[in-house]
This record gives sequence, structure tokens and C-alpha cells, in this order.
Amino acid sequence: MARYSPSVQNLISKLAGLPGIGGKSAQRLAFHILSMSDKEVEELANSITEAHKLTVRCSKCQNFTDSDPCPICSDTKRDNSTVCVVESPRDVSTFERMHEYNGLYHVLHGVFSPVSGKGMEDITLPQLISRLQTSPEIKEVIVATNQSAEGNATALYISRLLTPSGIKVTRLASGLPMGSDIEYADDLTLANALKGRIQI
Amino acid sequence: MARYSPSVQNLISKLAGLPGIGGKSAQRLAFHILSMSDKEVEELANSITEAHKLTVRCSKCQNFTDSDPCPICSDTKRDNSTVCVVESPRDVSTFERMHEYNGLYHVLHGVFSPVSGKGMEDITLPQLISRLQTSPEIKEVIVATNQSAEGNATALYISRLLTPSGIKVTRLASGLPMGSDIEYADDLTLANALKGRIQI
Repeated sequence: MARYSPSVQNLISKLAGLPGIGGKSAQRLAFHILSMSDKEVEELANSITEAHKLTVRCSKCQNFTDSDPCPICSDTKRDNSTVCVVESPRDVSTFERMHEYNGLYHVLHGVFSPVSGKGMEDITLPQLISRLQTSPEIKEVIVATNQSAEGNATALYISRLLTPSGIKVTRLASGLPMGSDIEYADDLTLANALKGRIQI
Repeated sequence: MARYSPSVQNLISKLAGLPGIGGKSAQRLAFHILSMSDKEVEELANSITEAHKLTVRCSKCQNFTDSDPCPICSDTKRDNSTVCVVESPRDVSTFERMHEYNGLYHVLHGVFSPVSGKGMEDITLPQLISRLQTSPEIKEVIVATNQSAEGNATALYISRLLTPSGIKVTRLASGLPMGSDIEYADDLTLANALKGRIQI
């Protein structure tokens, strides 16, 4: 005997396919959805299809937006000589939350990853190259990919690619996070902090 | 400036309203949904509305089902003299997974909870009472609510309610879980294990 009816089983497997949701959570969510009112369920399903339908990628920075170009790219008060290259749209909102960066962004939507077969064409690197070619005002590209093997490889690749253009390519500093104890730092972080030491 | 477009913001808040999904996970899920294909998004939204539309409560045991009465209640090979009362549909599948119980179920869809204002009418206790009145074949009610304050209070209430009817009311044993060390048992569990000790 099947443990659940086909429609419930289908809902559970669809939910379990989302990132960070395992089998148990998917069951829990499914039963929560079953106990919601008709109106709530309709609103949930609509919010999914609506957001997906209304959202496009900004033709300049490739971030998700409902207006093209996006609010950041069309904001004339921002410094258009600097472009911060990030892996995901969530990274843009992390930078914006900080209120310390006033330049523009470029969202890669991923990184090179030989393991998962992601090459240059699978991320928005071609769009970055053509954007830089048509935007002579851009003087610096800050590569803010994650401090992972793939993030570092992607950063190195971008830097090599842009060397002939004369555009300055920088990378976020790697070192000890604020409030951390040296005693508990891992070797790689400590080595990076040492390598990147600055004069005070 | 709003951090996300209205439709994305709406999607995030709808997802964050689901149990066990915090703000960060909701953002992560939302961006995953935005990067899905049109077809995948449609399938996800449909699985939600379809499961909700096709699922009803079984008129006998109140479990979620797509056919009324549910497969368990309509299975003539099951022992219809015993009803196991559980809090949620997930508990039914936990019992079924065990393959040791062959009776029927009654799903309360909650427990008494003065804190969250859940009284007798908010759970399917009236349905249980009327089911017992019209089903003289039921000889035993096993109360398998959780071992929580609310679960115990609900069990006690059901037992008091059924005393006049002469139906035997039992409760799952509370004690040390298999494989556990007495050293690490909490006081309440150990006290319950002592109180419920059986002759060997």
C-alpha cells in the first residue's frame, strides 16, 4: 500500500526537490499545506508563479529584477566606474545591507565547477566581458566570489581574462573574521591573513 | 529602496510563513524558484493546488485521503476493534512504517493547548465521540498523542470522557528509548520508566 495518495506523494517529492528541504521537512510542509485554507493555498501557488513570471534578468548586471535595467543599474547616484562580481543575487542584497558599497554589480549565477560540469558558458561571464567592452567608464572589477576552491578559480580566471584590457581586477581580502580568536582559526585562513597583512 | 521587487518580496514572505522555514531559507528557496524553468515552476505550483484540491478528510478516521473512506478504514483485513488516536497524519505513517499495528486510527489534527487557544472543538474529538457511539465493535482506544504536556492532558481528557462508555482506554508506554544509556536519561523519562516497570 502506498503510504500517501498520489497527489500528496507528488507534492512531497516536488517539495523535497527544493534546496535544503529533506524528506522529513517535505512531509511536514506538505501536511501543513493540506491543512491550509483554499485561499492561503491559492496565494502560495500564485506567489510562486507570479514572482517567476514577473522576474527577469537585468540586461546590464544579470541580477533578478522586475524592471530592466534594475533599480541599482538605473540609479544615477551610484559609482559606475566600479563593478562588483558576485555569485548570486543573495550576495547583492548582502552587500546592499552593509551600506558601504556604492558601485554596480554583476551577478554570475554560479561559478566554474568542473565537478558539477559548470563552464564559462553556464555562468554570465560572456555577458560581463561584453559589458566591459561597451562600458569604458568601468575602471575596476572587484571579484567577490566565495572563498571556496571554485570561487577562487573563477576569480583567477576572470583576472587572467581581463589583464589585456587594463581594467584593475581586485579580490576581497581573506583573513580572520572580526571577533574571532587566533587560537581557533584554521590554517588556511591564518595563512591568508598573514599573506594579506597590512601596515598599521 | 526595497531590497527585492514586490513579487519576489511576496514570494519570500509566503515561503517564510511555512513551518520550519526561516527568513534565510525563504530567500534561498525564492531565488531557487526564480532560477527554475517555466515548466518546473508550473509543476511545483500545480502539485500544491492539486494535492490540496484532491485531498479530503476521511469521514471515519479524519486522516487526509483522496478517497473517502480512506484505504486504511476500508481495508477489511484490519482489526476494527482497536482505534489508535494520534495527533497528526504523519503519526499514522510512522505507525504504518512499523508494520506492528493492524487496527484503525483517529487523527485529532492537534491537541488541547490553552496557550495557543486550542480547545475541544478545534481538534476532531467530537468526531471521535460520535464515531465510538455508532461503532459498537470498537473495544479499545489507544491514545498515542505525543509525550508533551498538551499530549498528556489530551490523553487524560479522552480517558475521562470515555470512562462511562466502558471502552478500554490505553496510553503508549513512556520509558527509556532503545539503545539509550541510563546515565543520560532525563529525570522525567527515568521516573516514567520506573513507574511503568514490567515483570520479566
